[in-house]
Amino acid sequence: MYEGAVQELIDELGRLPGVGPKSAQRLAFHILEADPEDMKRLVAAITTVKERVKFCTVCGNVTEQELCNICRDPRRDPSVICVVEESKDVLAVERTRSFRGRYHVLGGAINPIAGIGPEQLRIRELLTRLNDGAIQEIIIATDPNLEGEATATYLARMLKSIGITVTRLASGLPVGGDLEYADEVTLGRAFEGRRNALM
Amino acid sequence: MYEGAVQELIDELGRLPGVGPKSAQRLAFHILEADPEDMKRLVAAITTVKERVKFCTVCGNVTEQELCNICRDPRRDPSVICVVEESKDVLAVERTRSFRGRYHVLGGAINPIAGIGPEQLRIRELLTRLNDGAIQEIIIATDPNLEGEATATYLARMLKSIGITVTRLASGLPVGGDLEYADEVTLGRAFEGRRNALM
Repeated sequence: MYEGAVQELIDELGRLPGVGPKSAQRLAFHILEADPEDMKRLVAAITTVKERVKFCTVCGNVTEQELCNICRDPRRDPSVICVVEESKDVLAVERTRSFRGRYHVLGGAINPIAGIGPEQLRIRELLTRLNDGAIQEIIIATDPNLEGEATATYLARMLKSIGITVTRLASGLPVGGDLEYADEVTLGRAFEGRRNALM
Repeated sequence: MYEGAVQELIDELGRLPGVGPKSAQRLAFHILEADPEDMKRLVAAITTVKERVKFCTVCGNVTEQELCNICRDPRRDPSVICVVEESKDVLAVERTRSFRGRYHVLGGAINPIAGIGPEQLRIRELLTRLNDGAIQEIIIATDPNLEGEATATYLARMLKSIGITVTRLASGLPVGGDLEYADEVTLGRAFEGRRNALM
């Protein structure tokens, strides 16, 4: 409906998650009228993230180096691993200050409808980490929804055969929601009250 | 909270209108995980809009040329000008197919609290267009809210002294809303029922 470049921008913005046609239009006009320096910074931020940010080769968290800042930190307990779905969840757990171990980011949850099975997640990498014998406990902190529960059950059954303690976050998290939206107190309590994964 | 580049992207996205901290984080992670080609297209779309899109020197509508596609179109009636706040409003009026004249985009509405007075709007440019005597009617189509009404009253009083017919869109538009969100039928009826600006 608009002339070339404006409509192309509206189309591109409309492909972003949670951005509908009206929001895309509003954002496009904001960009059009904004200070060119501000928009150069936005473009540079997108480009830099795409060029520089990668995933930690050990845990899968986002990082600009080979290892993420948590895997690089010698003060973090290497005997406990908290398994989460996404990098955002690492930050949510860090905010609780309840956990001093390390992480493993799966990159999602089992979701047959979306075609995501265990082989699409970073589960093989998790098993590799267990090989050196330093890990004594795995805390499963997937989202408390259908996909997260399915993933947790899958992991718990698989890890039980290896003979490692596997725990899950305690109830206290609102069921059906996303881990990343839990407040610090709730998430901290859930950490403290974690339970055996097959109970 | 995140490492450098990711946090910078979240900060930049959070400065966009209607994007809160959680949305900014979600968008940043979407960008991080998206196909690099898709993100190159988004960056190119932003850059192209900032480089190529400007404002029509006659009416102030967005364009990639000296004049916008409506001002360039010889079939559009040059004797009637529809005055709107923003370029988005031009598109909303166009969708009604009720109007075959030309436009004048003010670039906003009078809003003393935000420091926007008549001198910040493209009112001087509107007066310049009236100089050649071809214009017989001005239809004021500002938003039906406080700022839009104030702008309409200001324009109507100013233009009345020049002796040009000044009309306003009819009631039918929901009061307190934004013109761009009106459906085509409502906006079309409002065009047909426009009334004298000082009644």
